[in-house]
Amino acid sequence: MENKLSMEEFSKFLKAKGFIYQSSEIYGGLSGLYDYGHNGTALKNNWCKEWRKFFLKLGSNFVEIDASIIMHEHVFKASGHLENFFDPIVVIEGEDQTYRADHLIEDKLNEKAEELTNEEMLKKIVENKLLGDIDYSKVKVENLNMMFPVDMGPKRATKAYLRPETAQSPYVNFKIQFELQRKKLPLGLGMIGRVYRNEISPRNLTLRTRELEQAELQIFFNPSKIDEHEGYEAVKNSKLKVLLKDKRDQEPEYLSLEELRSYGLPRFYLYHMLKVQQFHLEIMKLDEKNFRFLELNDKEKAFYNKYHFDIEVKMNNPASWVEVGGVHYRTDHDLKGHEEISRIKMEVLDDMTGERFIPHVLELSLGLGRQLYTLLDQKLSSEEERGNAVYGFPKKLAPNFVAVFPLMKRDSLPEYAKKIVEELEEEDLKVFYDEAGSVGKRYARQDEIGTPYCITVDYETLEEGENKNTVTIRDRDTTKQKRVQTEKLVSLLKDLQKEKVSFDDL
Amino acid sequence: MENKLSMEEFSKFLKAKGFIYQSSEIYGGLSGLYDYGHNGTALKNNWCKEWRKFFLKLGSNFVEIDASIIMHEHVFKASGHLENFFDPIVVIEGEDQTYRADHLIEDKLNEKAEELTNEEMLKKIVENKLLGDIDYSKVKVENLNMMFPVDMGPKRATKAYLRPETAQSPYVNFKIQFELQRKKLPLGLGMIGRVYRNEISPRNLTLRTRELEQAELQIFFNPSKIDEHEGYEAVKNSKLKVLLKDKRDQEPEYLSLEELRSYGLPRFYLYHMLKVQQFHLEIMKLDEKNFRFLELNDKEKAFYNKYHFDIEVKMNNPASWVEVGGVHYRTDHDLKGHEEISRIKMEVLDDMTGERFIPHVLELSLGLGRQLYTLLDQKLSSEEERGNAVYGFPKKLAPNFVAVFPLMKRDSLPEYAKKIVEELEEEDLKVFYDEAGSVGKRYARQDEIGTPYCITVDYETLEEGENKNTVTIRDRDTTKQKRVQTEKLVSLLKDLQKEKVSFDDL
Repeated sequence: MENKLSMEEFSKFLKAKGFIYQSSEIYGGLSGLYDYGHNGTALKNNWCKEWRKFFLKLGSNFVEIDASIIMHEHVFKASGHLENFFDPIVVIEGEDQTYRADHLIEDKLNEKAEELTNEEMLKKIVENKLLGDIDYSKVKVENLNMMFPVDMGPKRATKAYLRPETAQSPYVNFKIQFELQRKKLPLGLGMIGRVYRNEISPRNLTLRTRELEQAELQIFFNPSKIDEHEGYEAVKNSKLKVLLKDKRDQEPEYLSLEELRSYGLPRFYLYHMLKVQQFHLEIMKLDEKNFRFLELNDKEKAFYNKYHFDIEVKMNNPASWVEVGGVHYRTDHDLKGHEEISRIKMEVLDDMTGERFIPHVLELSLGLGRQLYTLLDQKLSSEEERGNAVYGFPKKLAPNFVAVFPLMKRDSLPEYAKKIVEELEEEDLKVFYDEAGSVGKRYARQDEIGTPYCITVDYETLEEGENKNTVTIRDRDTTKQKRVQTEKLVSLLKDLQKEKVSFDDL
Repeated sequence: MENKLSMEEFSKFLKAKGFIYQSSEIYGGLSGLYDYGHNGTALKNNWCKEWRKFFLKLGSNFVEIDASIIMHEHVFKASGHLENFFDPIVVIEGEDQTYRADHLIEDKLNEKAEELTNEEMLKKIVENKLLGDIDYSKVKVENLNMMFPVDMGPKRATKAYLRPETAQSPYVNFKIQFELQRKKLPLGLGMIGRVYRNEISPRNLTLRTRELEQAELQIFFNPSKIDEHEGYEAVKNSKLKVLLKDKRDQEPEYLSLEELRSYGLPRFYLYHMLKVQQFHLEIMKLDEKNFRFLELNDKEKAFYNKYHFDIEVKMNNPASWVEVGGVHYRTDHDLKGHEEISRIKMEVLDDMTGERFIPHVLELSLGLGRQLYTLLDQKLSSEEERGNAVYGFPKKLAPNFVAVFPLMKRDSLPEYAKKIVEELEEEDLKVFYDEAGSVGKRYARQDEIGTPYCITVDYETLEEGENKNTVTIRDRDTTKQKRVQTEKLVSLLKDLQKEKVSFDDL
């Protein structure tokens, strides 16, 4: 059964289970800042590992880099952030309280506002008296730059910024990495890192924060080859779940890549959309009914994006579709901007075709906090017959892969169990050892953090008889138990993790 | 042979091999900020994995957390950073240029200056005319707070800071995690994260930067048990390499833990010093002659540290001992400070003994940038007979574990090689495929980034005969080659990685 918790109950649950809680909490917290507890951190580390495995394998020339968060002022002159990275805020003369203008309209009037100009928003606010009974001549809608400046050096004279998106790091690194990767395109630069945005109204835990993380792959390619991909032919009939911009009032459609080509989308773009969908459905194992691509219209998308689909998940909390990433064809906007400001040529030569051009960029962008939130929201169910919540995380993502219990805290059972722990850890499996409370309670605790398997060492394990040197293994999803030989545990668990066998086959 | 490069040549080499280069480089870079290229990032990811495996296994109640970098102003009131986190700078009236006072004295007079007061430093600068022929009545030594403020919210009214050390995050998280970990001590909270310091004179690549990373384990324990550790007895005769504070003019000594107890150091502290030494010598495989613990004297150590040994490595570049971490007994300084400012009780109850107390903290602190620099500095050698540099990284830390080459780019050799790549990747081994240039050149390229093994698919692999379905495997350290059966490669390489077999045994 789906989780039906209120946002407040959900937050409490996430804290109680060591996933997420407010940062600097003993000081009352800070709006829009969260810490990850031990289980949240394990979930995050596992997600990052799977992200790397999946996305960095999409091309033979795809690598990961890691870059400084503080960046040169000129980076954001080139990218346009200094000039354009604003949120509209409502300011009332003589008052401290401010509001984000578009959110105010969306919340009170239940209509989309992000396409409106400041003047249009002000008009709606005044006409509908959205701020109650006040003097509306004192109300203004202004722009607030969302970047955080950092003044460095002994006299604080060097102006720099905390980057508001990871993307600029790979762009600024492009020339160096292009040389290092032997000047081959497509070149993929993947990066997982933090970014900072002075959000006016942070909300919904890690869905809208001021310090956030992104996992992004920037693919630099020859624009004349945008309708080619060597992997396309084999997958051209695969279907994407999309809500097209002109069909917003309808249900999402399942359209094959070939069908989507007729809407003007090129093969290189479509191939990567499919991969992004696969990551969400096959690696994160989201329910297809809660996943879709939303095509943005010209007013909604950033002006430099030629094609732009948001990745959306239908959450339980809040009960709505939420953007968790995007597939952005940014053209040569960024590299061109950096060429202009830095005066470093970004043009490259394609050895095969002899063409000279500034590479174009396809960005596969995922918000890490939102992706983890997705798992925490989508994978929680309350199983009434067992009386506890169960996190159905994919096996490779669960904070613990297996828990090991001695039935009792005596009679050599703990020693036997600890030896199993050691053997499993030796094989890099994430193991949790627990000897406290009844086995039923221990199962429940593991269910609540999503541990796929629990192993119990009992008296039969030690005593002479047919079950000597066997242990029980219990499956999270079905609660079924089986007895297996201790010496086969390692290979068995590895096969289960890799989904080479299923629990029922044991 | 040890690397004899100048700092400039070394920097160039690190950039050319994709390890480290200046951040925002196309804009002239920013002082004290570095990016990691693809090989630097892989090295870093591998190091972090080994750090987790080693340090989080030091206790049954040790977990990793991850926390926001921006923290509440009160955190730094409690920690003392607002009041005490200063560097002394030399300011000359009417001039823009400033200097870090202690560094100026150390560089020009070649004597330690960090214990001096500002007045003492000023006196030395004036008496020795360290700034040349200027009017010294205009010279002052002032304090500069090294933290970066971040003003949040629509009116920028919420004062917060980029944390200057990761440690405060676990301290602020202590109460929550203590509850989550079932109120058991010792409790270990490990964290890898970024911190920010407005260093006056950043230098030596990642040895002194303004944005840096730390990998730290904070161990919270019952102070009345500081002379106990369950693992102590088994290792009490193990020797540590230490330079004690009263013997600075002598060579470092090898003293057993028991011998060091007679200097007043307690078992809990000594046990963890040994583990820190093991990490450096056995996991990072540093040469013992370049490793030591340096005991700080009362003037040198932070006032809240009761015991404080720096971890030092003798670098080739710069040719001196460099601090790469420390073992700090911080007592209850931090939790007490947070209790005072937050008014949240930090006291806990020890169920076993009935004692109530504020836990004390032992901090095992490693600078991540410095640790990676250590590997890059210490593991580089120029092998004259092969005519190229060789990085002798430990097998688990090397950016690539194995490289796979087809002898030629034709005759099905690439297909065969790529199948091997797939099989190895399936087993989570880090593999690099290369088909460009002569095999000799490909070996050299892998040597220079420290790949332990190279596998070549040649014509014998494909042709009928005794070598059908065998490939050559070549050892980085000896350049020896052997032929092995393709179907045995996976298990063989895994055994080599885990050091279950050595290359000579093949």
